[in-house]
Amino acid sequence: MEKSYVIGIDIGGTNTVFGLVDAQGTILDSGSIKTEHYPDIDNYVAALADGLQGMIRQVDGIKQIKGIGIGAPMGNYFSGCIEGAVNLPWKGIIPLAQLLSDKTGGIPVAMTNDANAAAMGEMVYGAARGLKDFIMITLGTGVGSGIVIGGNLVYGHDGFAGELGHVIMRRENGRMCGCGRLGCLEAYTSATGVAGTAKELLMTRTDESLLRNLDPEKITSKDVYEAAIQGDKLAIEIFELTGEILGEAFADFIVFSSPEAIILFGGLTKAGDLLLNPVRRSMDNHVLGSYKGKIKLLVSQLNEGDAAILGAGALGWEAK
Amino acid sequence: MEKSYVIGIDIGGTNTVFGLVDAQGTILDSGSIKTEHYPDIDNYVAALADGLQGMIRQVDGIKQIKGIGIGAPMGNYFSGCIEGAVNLPWKGIIPLAQLLSDKTGGIPVAMTNDANAAAMGEMVYGAARGLKDFIMITLGTGVGSGIVIGGNLVYGHDGFAGELGHVIMRRENGRMCGCGRLGCLEAYTSATGVAGTAKELLMTRTDESLLRNLDPEKITSKDVYEAAIQGDKLAIEIFELTGEILGEAFADFIVFSSPEAIILFGGLTKAGDLLLNPVRRSMDNHVLGSYKGKIKLLVSQLNEGDAAILGAGALGWEAK
Repeated sequence: MEKSYVIGIDIGGTNTVFGLVDAQGTILDSGSIKTEHYPDIDNYVAALADGLQGMIRQVDGIKQIKGIGIGAPMGNYFSGCIEGAVNLPWKGIIPLAQLLSDKTGGIPVAMTNDANAAAMGEMVYGAARGLKDFIMITLGTGVGSGIVIGGNLVYGHDGFAGELGHVIMRRENGRMCGCGRLGCLEAYTSATGVAGTAKELLMTRTDESLLRNLDPEKITSKDVYEAAIQGDKLAIEIFELTGEILGEAFADFIVFSSPEAIILFGGLTKAGDLLLNPVRRSMDNHVLGSYKGKIKLLVSQLNEGDAAILGAGALGWEAK
Repeated sequence: MEKSYVIGIDIGGTNTVFGLVDAQGTILDSGSIKTEHYPDIDNYVAALADGLQGMIRQVDGIKQIKGIGIGAPMGNYFSGCIEGAVNLPWKGIIPLAQLLSDKTGGIPVAMTNDANAAAMGEMVYGAARGLKDFIMITLGTGVGSGIVIGGNLVYGHDGFAGELGHVIMRRENGRMCGCGRLGCLEAYTSATGVAGTAKELLMTRTDESLLRNLDPEKITSKDVYEAAIQGDKLAIEIFELTGEILGEAFADFIVFSSPEAIILFGGLTKAGDLLLNPVRRSMDNHVLGSYKGKIKLLVSQLNEGDAAILGAGALGWEAK
């Protein structure tokens, strides 16, 4: 008998969300626990397995579950371990896939990082259906990526490929990145990066802006968006600068894997054409001639609330 | 019966070289024709097939030949066509794989570009034996690349992935590249790029150098090498600047595919540690912390004279 369901689990520093997903991408049931309440990994796995029991029962037991997929920071697909994730309560190398499989009666568990899971979700359920070569870029607090080549996620020799938020975009006077280096893509084009650009422009320019009514230390990318849709020129320019750098980066990514599409996901994409138009223009300006006009720029088709579960769930179909 | 041989063909603007290769990577016989003497593609294919006849006869006919591999500029693996190669005599889209297969009694023919063929050669016969994830960088007149992920060459959605010579390394005051853009890796780290750096330093500096005895318009990377091994400080610095940029670029490539090794091939690698030490140092300085010390820098193990035939031959094993 064909197994008809998967379970997707998304682990964040604060919350862990999980859901039961069918082959059409419908989330039939979902739940969550507080990651930060379980500094002991065994207690965490026990609480998580408890949370999954109800789902497993409602589909008539584990024989109906094809697999469990997990998206987690520093999740290594090859080892099934979380390896030194700074935002999670557990230190060192945590063999989570094995622990959870043991605790759920042997359901196969596969794990990868959250951006890779997002790419899987897009390929199985979203904007990348039918695509075999694409790059998923997640624009959130940080900038993550999942690269698909020939229908397979690129994990690299050690399980940690696809950290495209950390290509260097500015080699002179680069902005400090959370990784400790200067000039990374993430430092400019994450939500934090957009706020940083706002702060920088407000300090180095004299023109009027709605953003000047706010405390510059507390400006968020959402504030910039709200000013931009009111026609604020400075705010619009911030999205243009952000799009310009993204387009420059995408031109470099394209010479690597010549993808059919680059797919954007995450909070910043809510800015719509305020961001997408500059990205398109910049990508087209900077791309090597032989690729011009060939590579699509798409936005995720998954609802942001469901995407984490669907992405992890998509990985569950591959679990062995 | 197992077919025991392949034929490798490397097509350059001036010469086409070809050879009969066995499973151990021995070139049993080789030959060449002048590409530029055949502006008509049918005449070219006829001359090439003639050249192969002797090889095919000596192994007792086409039943012993597993396949023919071709490395050619703008060679598209998916279509088997050469698509608009500016340095070859034929214009437009040339279905060379099909033409040659027809002319040789139906031997399967596979084609890709020369840098991809070099990567195949290294994987089957050279420094990348046993590696499933590596990036081959060819440092010649231009800078080419072949990317291997999970044991497969990356061709991209259109057959033209892996143009890593055209990532942008200098976004301000970038040097003109042959592709028409500014600041490409190739503009700094090809043999031509090294000569360009020499010319630049000689113009903008006043210190003594053996290179000042030469006509700056005619300096080659070989001149720089010869000055450097005599201890010329300016020449040594030119290799250091070249290595610095290569290391910066490799740090970006690593976050893409997390390869086990980056393998260098081509004329410039003859400079040995004059180039390799700065590359290693720069790569180590610039790489994202989590990859530090994990990625090997290797030099091709194939003799430069044989590499083109072995690379194309390696592709021949895959021809269908």
